Amino acid sequence: MSTTAWPDTACLKARLQRAQEAAATAGVDALLVSPGSDLRYLLGVAGGSFERLTCLVVPPPGHPATLVVPALERPGYDHVPTDDLGVRVATWVDQDNPYQLLYDCLPGEPSRVALADVMTAMHVLRLRDQQPKAEQVLAGQIMRDLRMRKEAAELAALRKAGEAIDRVHARMGEWLRPGRTEAEVGADIAAAIVDEGHAEAAFVIVGSGPNGASPHHDVSDRVIEAGDVVVVDIGGPVAEGYNSDSTRTYVLGEPSEPDVRATYEVLQRAQQTAVDLVRPGVTAQSVDEAARRIITDAGFGEYFIHRTGHGIGLDVHEEPYIVAGNDLRLEPGMAFSVEPGIYLPGRWGARIEDIVIVTDHGVESMNNRPHDLVVL
Amino acid sequence: MSTTAWPDTACLKARLQRAQEAAATAGVDALLVSPGSDLRYLLGVAGGSFERLTCLVVPPPGHPATLVVPALERPGYDHVPTDDLGVRVATWVDQDNPYQLLYDCLPGEPSRVALADVMTAMHVLRLRDQQPKAEQVLAGQIMRDLRMRKEAAELAALRKAGEAIDRVHARMGEWLRPGRTEAEVGADIAAAIVDEGHAEAAFVIVGSGPNGASPHHDVSDRVIEAGDVVVVDIGGPVAEGYNSDSTRTYVLGEPSEPDVRATYEVLQRAQQTAVDLVRPGVTAQSVDEAARRIITDAGFGEYFIHRTGHGIGLDVHEEPYIVAGNDLRLEPGMAFSVEPGIYLPGRWGARIEDIVIVTDHGVESMNNRPHDLVVL
Repeated sequence: MSTTAWPDTACLKARLQRAQEAAATAGVDALLVSPGSDLRYLLGVAGGSFERLTCLVVPPPGHPATLVVPALERPGYDHVPTDDLGVRVATWVDQDNPYQLLYDCLPGEPSRVALADVMTAMHVLRLRDQQPKAEQVLAGQIMRDLRMRKEAAELAALRKAGEAIDRVHARMGEWLRPGRTEAEVGADIAAAIVDEGHAEAAFVIVGSGPNGASPHHDVSDRVIEAGDVVVVDIGGPVAEGYNSDSTRTYVLGEPSEPDVRATYEVLQRAQQTAVDLVRPGVTAQSVDEAARRIITDAGFGEYFIHRTGHGIGLDVHEEPYIVAGNDLRLEPGMAFSVEPGIYLPGRWGARIEDIVIVTDHGVESMNNRPHDLVVL
Repeated sequence: MSTTAWPDTACLKARLQRAQEAAATAGVDALLVSPGSDLRYLLGVAGGSFERLTCLVVPPPGHPATLVVPALERPGYDHVPTDDLGVRVATWVDQDNPYQLLYDCLPGEPSRVALADVMTAMHVLRLRDQQPKAEQVLAGQIMRDLRMRKEAAELAALRKAGEAIDRVHARMGEWLRPGRTEAEVGADIAAAIVDEGHAEAAFVIVGSGPNGASPHHDVSDRVIEAGDVVVVDIGGPVAEGYNSDSTRTYVLGEPSEPDVRATYEVLQRAQQTAVDLVRPGVTAQSVDEAARRIITDAGFGEYFIHRTGHGIGLDVHEEPYIVAGNDLRLEPGMAFSVEPGIYLPGRWGARIEDIVIVTDHGVESMNNRPHDLVVL
């Protein structure tokens, strides 16, 4: 259970107010917010996700929000300024029925409730069975509208995270050497992620040689060789909860494959072009298209097997997704990755990833290490 | 994404077969198994839980199971012997509709599907919307019947985990000293959990003085003082994925509160009595009652604010729960905690926790450190 003195009560109060208004706009009788990043956004505490129901019940304005929480988890929320926020607390013990307790927190019989995207099926279906007439919809679309446009303090936290992960990439030559395994290098990187200012290392991908062609590879016992191309995709949250996520591609000396430099040049051009396109009013999918077109025109379209990016904040992956079909128009304060990749199965892969934020007139990158293929 | 060479193909094949038979018995057209411990039980890989749908579709016998997986997550399942298991693999890319793909894996229109307890609402409601006529029920009760009676190799892994955490408790005097914060002590314990043979430290509770009265406290910046009672509840998975979980209560010199020794004696008697009751045929709730009666008779009933125990295996908390109302009869191979506690708000708390397994004729404890109040 993670707590932090940040954000302050006024900030939380404003967010809760916006959430209540969003519930009204969406026509739901309550947002039901399970432990996770939505809860951290609203209360400053992510809570724990266990088999016992914890849920913040957020009705439209005019009715108080209630935190339903098991009695033995209650102390984990002691730092939440519930009185100042006007949030009631309803505790329960192991013999109680928390699902009925939850519905009892609402002013009347609900006809429609919005569930946090991360609520588990165990709770989703028990809530449904407790109140079969209450239609269940996802709260994700409602919460994303709140969380997607970051406040100044959130952007500052993302900047801090970006600078911290840049410092780790700057030190890559200390660890990434022929003769070491990906796992050994990964352990050193994980320690450095914390040393350089993160609360934890959330993920460490070291994809060397053919492993670089698997975008979500993590690490393995493969021994890295001279001439290997190595994809290093790393990140984690800073104390405020906001995440870094940055990828650079390295090569140990002269590439052992003949097509590395020319292919990488295509990737670098695609990534830069996509970043340069980012500004208010542009659609998310057009950023994806910009990167994809360059890679496709160069004949590598079938080897770019994922979307161009994902939003980032309290979650490593959140809205907005930079993907075909997403016609969302970018607005100032949105933060997301731009990370095209080219993956040649069984041979090698490359990816370049920066976190960018949309500014009033353009774009600001959280990651500012060189984008070239880094020769170590 | 965690992989291990264990369990072997024959073991997985038998489990999958049992799961298919259980689906038939439960009258569902498929078990829909999301990433998590149910997936690890069936395929040997827990998978990652992301916004992209990954799901093992397990129909009744006579039809093959199918792993629905995003193309870019596919390599994480390369070690799964899908061919030998007869499991088909259906990959999808970001522009596809994975929910329809999932239903297409079934031989016909489903009328009832069972969802893994940990599937997130995002997927639960999209599956519902894709096929509104398919009633959704929880797979938890079905999976628990498979997972609750551990195989010999699972029990061996639990024993290994128990021995590892016992070695950590044996070293507590190295770290737990007046003048140090709970967080400092906790960091040392976390490192030792790994050093002594765990894959990771899943949780570290160091509840000193008044913090010990909060059962799910983790650590804080409180400086531990001479005379403090300190609850230390620690554990994590070994490489095979099976967890340790053991609590001992320590005191730094002579207790500063006058009622510690007499109260602890009650707790120790309650814990021992409950453990001694465990054998095949006894109900889960009677084990809870045995501990609770002793604590209640001594006047501390209102300070024992949680159930007596929880099952343990690939999850730290799983079936069977040792709680009032659970009339499940214990069977050989079941594994769970016996962990009564007494919590005096604002003052101090104590808990004693062992993991035990039900044997053919009685009980075997995975944790064998002394149960006395440990004076450091």
